[in-house]
Parts: sequence; C-alpha cells; structure tokens
Amino acid sequence: MNKSVKLPADIRIGVIGGGQLGKMLIEASRPWNVKYTVLENDLHCPASSVADKVILGGLKDAEGIRKLASGCDVLTFEIEHINSDALLEIEESGKTVIPSARALKTIQDKGIQKLFYREHGIPTADFLICDNPSNLAESVKSFAGGKVVIKQCTGGYDGKGVDIVAKTEIEAGVFKSPGPCVVEHFHANITEYSVIVAADRYGNVVAYPLIEMYFNPQSNLVEFLFSPAETTADLEADCRSIAMRAVKALRSPGLFAVELFVNQNAEVLVNEIAPRPHNSGHHTIEGSYTSQFEQLNRILLGLPLGNTDMVQPAAMINLVGGEGQNGFYKLKFTEQLLSEPGVYVHLYNKTEIRPHRKMGHITVMAESLQALLEKAGKVREWAVFE
Amino acid sequence: MNKSVKLPADIRIGVIGGGQLGKMLIEASRPWNVKYTVLENDLHCPASSVADKVILGGLKDAEGIRKLASGCDVLTFEIEHINSDALLEIEESGKTVIPSARALKTIQDKGIQKLFYREHGIPTADFLICDNPSNLAESVKSFAGGKVVIKQCTGGYDGKGVDIVAKTEIEAGVFKSPGPCVVEHFHANITEYSVIVAADRYGNVVAYPLIEMYFNPQSNLVEFLFSPAETTADLEADCRSIAMRAVKALRSPGLFAVELFVNQNAEVLVNEIAPRPHNSGHHTIEGSYTSQFEQLNRILLGLPLGNTDMVQPAAMINLVGGEGQNGFYKLKFTEQLLSEPGVYVHLYNKTEIRPHRKMGHITVMAESLQALLEKAGKVREWAVFE
Repeated sequence: MNKSVKLPADIRIGVIGGGQLGKMLIEASRPWNVKYTVLENDLHCPASSVADKVILGGLKDAEGIRKLASGCDVLTFEIEHINSDALLEIEESGKTVIPSARALKTIQDKGIQKLFYREHGIPTADFLICDNPSNLAESVKSFAGGKVVIKQCTGGYDGKGVDIVAKTEIEAGVFKSPGPCVVEHFHANITEYSVIVAADRYGNVVAYPLIEMYFNPQSNLVEFLFSPAETTADLEADCRSIAMRAVKALRSPGLFAVELFVNQNAEVLVNEIAPRPHNSGHHTIEGSYTSQFEQLNRILLGLPLGNTDMVQPAAMINLVGGEGQNGFYKLKFTEQLLSEPGVYVHLYNKTEIRPHRKMGHITVMAESLQALLEKAGKVREWAVFE
Repeated sequence: MNKSVKLPADIRIGVIGGGQLGKMLIEASRPWNVKYTVLENDLHCPASSVADKVILGGLKDAEGIRKLASGCDVLTFEIEHINSDALLEIEESGKTVIPSARALKTIQDKGIQKLFYREHGIPTADFLICDNPSNLAESVKSFAGGKVVIKQCTGGYDGKGVDIVAKTEIEAGVFKSPGPCVVEHFHANITEYSVIVAADRYGNVVAYPLIEMYFNPQSNLVEFLFSPAETTADLEADCRSIAMRAVKALRSPGLFAVELFVNQNAEVLVNEIAPRPHNSGHHTIEGSYTSQFEQLNRILLGLPLGNTDMVQPAAMINLVGGEGQNGFYKLKFTEQLLSEPGVYVHLYNKTEIRPHRKMGHITVMAESLQALLEKAGKVREWAVFE
C-alpha cells in the first residue's frame, strides 16, 4: 500500500480485542465506513455494538488470530496481552500488522522494554531484571532508599502487576515475588505525564500536547488527567521529544502512549509505552483536531497523519465501578453532567459493573486551562454510579 | 417518561428512513450505546452500517411503520416523505413520536405550512395556494415583478419541487403546473440562512448560531455554508428569535432546521422548516459543543438539551456527484483534504455515485471567521470525486 490511498478505502481492518479501545477506534471510523472485524472471547464485548463482525476467540489463541487475519487486509490490536508469536507469523507471511509484532514483543515483556530504553538512550528509572524469584531479596540491595518498584515482566494490566514495596518487606519475605520482574528505583513525589505519539507507515512521527495524569492510589488506575499540562514550555518540549525518540526507536507505525514522570530533580524518565490508543488519550476525542482513534484509523488506512493540536484544553475523568458495585448500573448525576456545557459522557457498553472496572469516561472542555480545572473539579463529584 | 432519565438509557429508538441523517444520528449515539432500528426499503442504506437492526419496508407503508413502532419505545423520522397517517395512529395509541405526527402534517404540505406561518404571525413571503393547476396563470397575476416561485405542495425534496418561473412562461403555458402548489412572491438578491432549533419534551427551546448558506444554482442544493454568519448582531438575533418562535408555534419536541432569507429591504422571512436534522446543521458535528445529532438523541431520550454554542467557527461543503459520475467513486484529493488541519471528511456509505447525489460532506474549522473562509475557499476546490 502506498500513500495514494483514497476514501472510501476498501480496506478491511481486524482488531485483536473488543474492549472499549476497539469500540472507540471503530466509532471514530464511522464517517469513513471502514469495515471492522473484532476478535474477542465474548460476543457481547464493548466493541460488538459497532463492529461489522465479531469473531469469537481468545486473544492468546493462535487459531483465532489467524482466522481474523485471513479475512482482513490490516491487523491491529487494542491490548498487549495477545499471542505475539501468532502475530509475528502473520506479519512474516506478508500481511500488514500495525504496530509491528516485533514492537509488541519489545513492549510485552517489561524487562525487554527496559533494556530497549537503555539500549536506545531513553531515560528511564534505574532497574535490574530479576528472573529468579529467589534472587529478589538480593536484587533489591543495590537500590538506594527504603522502597523499590516491582513490575511483573509479563501480564500486568490496568494498574495490576506493579507494586511499590518496602525493601524490608522483601528482605523479610513478607512480599511474595510475582515471578520474573523488573526491580526499579522508587522515585517519590513524582508528577506523571503521558504523550500520545503517532507514527505513520512512511516514517512520519508526531506527538500530542503533554497530558498531566493523576492516579487512584487504591486501584492504580488513572483517575483524572488534563492537557495541556500545567508546566513549563521547556519541560513540555523535553517530554514530547523523549516520547518521540522512544517511538522512533521502536521503528514501527502505530499509535503509542508514552507514560513518563518527572522526579524531584526535574529529570524526565520514561515509565512505559503502550502500543495502542490509551486511557490517557481519551480527551482527544473532543479536545483535539484529530482524536487518538481517528489518528490510528489514518495510520491503519495509510492516510496522512492528522493535526495533533488541541481545539481547547480538555480533561478526562474515568467512570469506574465503586466499592461494592456489581451488576446493573446507572449514572447517578446524568442530569447534572448533561446540563454542563462542554461535558461529554462515554459509556463502554459493558454488561455489568464491578468495583474498579472502567465503565466509561467523561471529557470536559473549556476555553482556558483555569476554567477547565474549575469545571473538571465540579464534574469529578458527579462521576459516580448509583 | 420524565426528566429523570439516566444513562445507560434502556430505550429503543426507531427511525423511519435510513439515509445519511439516520446514519449520523446513530453515530452520535454510540457513546451512549442507544439501540437503534431503522426502516428503509434498502438493506444497504447508509444507516445500515451503524443501526442495530434494519427493517425492510417503504417509508409510506403503514405496515412497515407499525412493525418498526412495535419494537421501539420512541419513534422518529429522518425524512418528511413518510406515511404521517400511520404515524398519527401510532402516536394516538400512546407511543412517543418525536417530532409529533401533527407537526409533521403541518410541514409535509407546503400550503398548510405557509398557512401555519400566516396564522402564527411568522413572517414569510407573500403567497397564494393554487390547488387547481388550471388556475395557475390566473393566480400569478396578483404578484408584483416578472417572476414567481412555484413550490409543489407535497413531494418536493433536496431542491426538487421548487421553481423560479417567469410569469410570462406561466401565462403562455410554457411552464407546466406541478399540481397543487404554493405561488410565492419572488425576492431577488436574497441572503439565505438557517437556524437549527431544538425543543425538548419539557417545553425548553434553544437555537444554534445563525448559519449562512450558499446554494448551487443548477441543483438547488446547499453547496457551502458557515456559522456564525457574517452579519450584524441585530439580524442574527432577529433570525434566531423568529426561528424559535416558529418552532414554539409547532408545539412539538424535536430538532428543526428553520430556513430563512433576508430580502433587499432587510426583512427576515421564513422559507420553510425541516422537522429533523438538516444538511445546514452538519457543521455542528465538529463545530458545536453539542451536534444537531447528539441534540436529537438527547431529546429522544428525554435528557437535558445540550449547549448550542460553537467551539470554533465552522463551514460545511457538500460532497455531491458531478455531471456524468455514476457507479464507483473515490475522492480525488484525499491526501490534500486529510493533510489540512481542522478538516473532517464524512462519507455516507452510499453504494453508487450519481450526478447531484449527496455522497458526503466536509467540515472545516478555524479559530476565526476570516481564517475559516480562507481555508474553506481552498478546501472547496478539493470537494470532488475522481
């Protein structure tokens, strides 16, 4: 495929995973009528309501991925925890896979991901890889400070698989090793950011404005974010430049979220890269000229990259299940949310609520960052279910 | 249903008609996962790709409409040329029909529509209703000027059924009467506008900013428009106030487009009302905090009306089939269109192109009206198919 792709594009896209990211990716493609097939182990998955076709199958099941690939021209994924060997095999057979299976393999294992940063001179927190659980206590000794960060090499997701642990707990055997893991220096009092980076098939790479993120301390899920970040132009430029450098080093087209943090010494360090649309980019649906989802559609279709500027400052608030919430759900403050100008409610079409489950999100827009933060503060109070 | 509707809303909506307006209405509802069924006589209609269900049936077929109604909680339509008697019967049986069947009946017949304006003191061009074609020559005699406007009472659509005719051609019998029609005073050198007006179920009525429209002289289709209009605050206020007055007089919830024009004496006159989302409101998808389609979803679901302010000035350019274009189609300037910041391409999922057929539209956004008109001027050159 070359750069002369025209609309309507007669390209069938397959997505491994049918969650909310797949749903919003397909929603963004509706004005272009792209044919989307989704692979998911649940016919009532969030994306099922908008996909042209759902193939029932596990995301680690090579057969399902091959079946999806056989009916599609371009293959992508909306979650990292998939069978990357099957993806590699399909890519090597000549099918277009975006992002590349190789880039996914680099990211899937947090140990390999950290080594990739080191190899490419991407700043990241000091680390050791601990393959053998029995060596964990020995591994943490070389780290300064009383705490370390323990990240499972594989399988972590949505705040799970990452723990901040006191070294004494590890040494005393109170903390159980999760298996092969990355041991990282713990940086206290950090500010967390994200940069959405888009890379097309022709070597062009663009970045969105810096996103400032706040996490829920219990669930470790992003709870609230806004963009542009409340910081200096220099730091914004540093973060964007490091994020673009990291994505360029991956040498793969795709839409990536680069999570970074700034420590007490004002150093920018890359935390991790997600090779797909990301929770930290949901505000781009209304807040940016080109949403992260439209951007990925452009990349998948071989169309030019879209403008990453913001139309207005925007914030995002996750709608997650509260403690003890199960089954049936309704928003508690629908009237207030929908009466507030510049507020957008997105629900993910999930059949049941569960504690900490991402059920939807709210975008807030305003003409200035100050007005945005005031409005978002009010709206956060309404982001609950009955 | 009362105003305490909450999201997710377990309401099934039925739409009579599955064209692009139905398609965009459903697209706007995807973040809320509303269940939509469409009635259309073509299973491959534009809305088919996004509707949950398509019922095959003619829009004038009472049986089809009844079948649609029986499976839905709320009924709406995206075209006026439907069986309004069947709709009335369904409404009288207690089903929620928005807009009301009575409002549709007032609008369906252009003669009744003109009498409605007169009855409610809504300014409109002077007219006579000519029920008997043989009286047409006699009817036009009382009009000043060399030309009159002849509007078929029923069946006109998308620029068809309206003619500007020299009185001499009518008197000489060169112009054939289209049957029952409205004869209207012809106003030369008018500027045409539209106001999108939303009325909820609780008596609230809001208007969008004034839209300035330019029509193709051959096809009589709107070709280009922008909002806010390039006019005085007084004229804008007049137009919005007259449009809201006209919609209030209809005494029906719904989303309406009030087409108006200003004549050489700076009088504002209502041309006609469309009781549905309208081509003149497509720029609201990106340009307004609440698009005309989201607004109608809110009304249908019994949710609060959304803010009608614009995020930025916006223009809309129709993508229509050119002379001699039939069958297969591709945009000619995809690369240029998608490389220009603030440009959005919407394609309607039509299987074949035909001359003057609406195939899609382009929205253009910019920070100022001046920048918008410059950009839109450039983009208009690219709004063609190969």
